[in-house]
Amino acid sequence: MVPKKNREIVLAGIPKGMPSEGDFRLEETDIPKCRDGEVLIRTLYLSVDPYMRGRMSGVKTYISPFQLNNAIVGGIVGEVVETMSSDLKTGDIVEGNLGWRDYNAADSRELRKINPDLAPVSTALGVLGMPGLTAYFGLLDIGKPQQGETVVVSGAAGAVGSTVGQIAKIKGCRVVGIAGSDTKTRYLTEKFWFDAAVNYKTSPDLKKALKDACPHGVDVYFDNVGGEISDAVMPLLNYKARIALCGQISQYNSEKTDTGPRIQPYLLVKSALIKGFIIMDYADRQEEGRAQLARWIKDKKLKYTENIVEGLENAPAAFIGLFKGENLGKQLVMVSEPSR
Amino acid sequence: MVPKKNREIVLAGIPKGMPSEGDFRLEETDIPKCRDGEVLIRTLYLSVDPYMRGRMSGVKTYISPFQLNNAIVGGIVGEVVETMSSDLKTGDIVEGNLGWRDYNAADSRELRKINPDLAPVSTALGVLGMPGLTAYFGLLDIGKPQQGETVVVSGAAGAVGSTVGQIAKIKGCRVVGIAGSDTKTRYLTEKFWFDAAVNYKTSPDLKKALKDACPHGVDVYFDNVGGEISDAVMPLLNYKARIALCGQISQYNSEKTDTGPRIQPYLLVKSALIKGFIIMDYADRQEEGRAQLARWIKDKKLKYTENIVEGLENAPAAFIGLFKGENLGKQLVMVSEPSR
Repeated sequence: MVPKKNREIVLAGIPKGMPSEGDFRLEETDIPKCRDGEVLIRTLYLSVDPYMRGRMSGVKTYISPFQLNNAIVGGIVGEVVETMSSDLKTGDIVEGNLGWRDYNAADSRELRKINPDLAPVSTALGVLGMPGLTAYFGLLDIGKPQQGETVVVSGAAGAVGSTVGQIAKIKGCRVVGIAGSDTKTRYLTEKFWFDAAVNYKTSPDLKKALKDACPHGVDVYFDNVGGEISDAVMPLLNYKARIALCGQISQYNSEKTDTGPRIQPYLLVKSALIKGFIIMDYADRQEEGRAQLARWIKDKKLKYTENIVEGLENAPAAFIGLFKGENLGKQLVMVSEPSR
Repeated sequence: MVPKKNREIVLAGIPKGMPSEGDFRLEETDIPKCRDGEVLIRTLYLSVDPYMRGRMSGVKTYISPFQLNNAIVGGIVGEVVETMSSDLKTGDIVEGNLGWRDYNAADSRELRKINPDLAPVSTALGVLGMPGLTAYFGLLDIGKPQQGETVVVSGAAGAVGSTVGQIAKIKGCRVVGIAGSDTKTRYLTEKFWFDAAVNYKTSPDLKKALKDACPHGVDVYFDNVGGEISDAVMPLLNYKARIALCGQISQYNSEKTDTGPRIQPYLLVKSALIKGFIIMDYADRQEEGRAQLARWIKDKKLKYTENIVEGLENAPAAFIGLFKGENLGKQLVMVSEPSR
């Protein structure tokens, strides 16, 4: 039964620095009508991701900014409850880039149908979705880890980082994670098979701690964080090191251009490479990546953790939590339960 | 006739910041004896190159440091005047990495014989030597310029930069040079076919000047200089831009780690790449590069400029001049004239 009223979360203001709950507003709206080719989707899970902070700045980066007083848009998994499309039927589970709403209407061509027998449907937003594919392509296409090399991952306990580390282990590397709590570093070494993990918040000398964890230097650095954490990695780079630049979460809430030691001299003396990327760069290879990730999960070589809060109204807090280092693994918001 | 006494220039002290003539000393020594397999070489030209500053720091980078009170070692073209090797005969012209001396003895296997009929032998230290090959591999292998793209070169009037710009023109690109005098910028557009050139010393707003010169943004940046000049290029990068990181001459005399705006956010939003390199990375492809450069010179598609001072005793001043922006094209020191 579709209710009469819909709810959505809109951007109420452009955050200054760290976003606050006041930058968001829960509004009551109407349930949208399905037009030809569209389906009505009841949101099961919505995804909060660090990159979304960039869309709240009012400035176009690689993606257009969120509009004030419009619903936040992000990765959503939902169930089709009405259909005007021959492609999808009621009860189908789909994934798409949709509004933070209880119900969305969307063209079926902009949705991806999920096989719920393969894995829990929430993984379409995590290890089998954007974060998993980001880890897969960034590490393998830019990092190109070779057996016996040392791979360092910042933001290692997040959805992307924990997947990067495990893929690097599959490739036979020594894997060192950087994270912000002892719970996280313990998790990395105990659950995710990392060889070592460094707590950047409590290490009295991060450079030394990393050097101790990387006795043979760093061949691949998968960077989700940037700032002083990356500064500490640079002096450890080996000849022809590769840096996959995935995110800079330490900078997203910065209100001015951040300065730091220039990295070019480090890259120069080591013939090292650094390359930024976004998952859209690999738009034509998503199925390859998803199939490989699913195989590794089936073979029990790849694990994942989800951190789920309940209630659409709690999405802003879950999003803000990303920047406080609260999540371990993929942060999701459960908005409703599937009908079966 | 080989004289009785040799002269050499030794490193007298580790320069602090900008090197001074007091950091070098001219000494009288003996003419070395040839051992089996060796030849005695009379220096015709010696090369002064910015990278050599790094070898004067007392610290190992990608190459071991010069030793105090030992001769400076660099690229030299010379004439064989005595031979104990079946590979080389008297009168042959060779190129090698040798001491700043009137005469060097060296194993023939560490020398490359030059064909003096192909081009003036001095070009073995310039456009057909390390600087030319550096331009060739850095631009084509890392920059990968495509027809119609915009290529920006810093240090554009130097031996490497002027070659980079011309190769980019051969590849059908819009080429913009950055240099430090109006004489140089005029030279770039008038002699070397650059589409535009910016004088970074006199531009009141370097970012604006570059933006005006690059109306379609920057696809490839070949960086010889670093520092604030590179800071001004970063905001202009296009999607999937490539930066070939060749040198950082603005930093070589810096006594502390230089800081500046972090570049990772620029690389991230543009999926851009930056890669350091040295010519040794392409050790196995030198002949390919040299052959192509020679063909372009023969076809009058590639020009070069040499700036030649005379006298071994003037080598330190010529070297120091590199950091004052004195040279236009390849800076050489002529030590003696060929016997024929």
